[in-house]
Amino acid sequence: MFNRIDHIGVAVEDIEEALLLYRDAFQMDVAHREIVEEQGVEAVLLDVGENHVELLAPLGPDTPVGKFLAKRGPGLHHVAYQVSDIDATLEALKAAGLPLIDERPRVGIRGSLVAFLHPKGSGAVLTEIVQPVEGH
Amino acid sequence: MFNRIDHIGVAVEDIEEALLLYRDAFQMDVAHREIVEEQGVEAVLLDVGENHVELLAPLGPDTPVGKFLAKRGPGLHHVAYQVSDIDATLEALKAAGLPLIDERPRVGIRGSLVAFLHPKGSGAVLTEIVQPVEGH
Repeated sequence: MFNRIDHIGVAVEDIEEALLLYRDAFQMDVAHREIVEEQGVEAVLLDVGENHVELLAPLGPDTPVGKFLAKRGPGLHHVAYQVSDIDATLEALKAAGLPLIDERPRVGIRGSLVAFLHPKGSGAVLTEIVQPVEGH
Repeated sequence: MFNRIDHIGVAVEDIEEALLLYRDAFQMDVAHREIVEEQGVEAVLLDVGENHVELLAPLGPDTPVGKFLAKRGPGLHHVAYQVSDIDATLEALKAAGLPLIDERPRVGIRGSLVAFLHPKGSGAVLTEIVQPVEGH
């Protein structure tokens, strides 16, 4: 069902400070940087082999990541698994009885198709599935 | 420095209930199951391509994972990156000024060599490095 871990999402207060850790100390290459207004975040993707770390800084306190930071502080935010066919995967997950946040895929970072499962059905882990655009 | 994400660690109250999600609904193969007395956990490794999910259930309330569950509830617990030479990586991380929980590698699940970085130096993310035994 899942090909690999696509990325872990990490909530951070400040992207530049986080890059001192992930880019400089951990020596991960920055693959992509994007402001996703719709989700209220600035996101940076770094490469770890075929996997990624996604740093997420909120554009304001009244955004999902802003509220997460206020409640839990910085840290691990979600995990995303890579799939080849997001529509078929969503159908299979729905058939297995899992509650979904996104019934249909939407466009995520770097043009990928993404959907989130509801944490209440996945052991309190915010879980995303991602169908990357070709070449990623 | 890191070859890939080795695994994400997920703190759970009950391994069997978590397997209904990860093994049955997510269709991940169970690769390994082990009681690690020294760390006070029962751990199950599931395959996701070349990556893994590590389910962690505490052997009692007075264990690190037991305390984590009492404080934060179930959910994402740590991320582990795979390395080829854990001694050299620890030296490089120390040289970069990162605080370590384990100054030297110790034996982890499935005979791997592991070391934890201190979350205070890694953006409140509990971060592990893993040098797997050959074949894993």
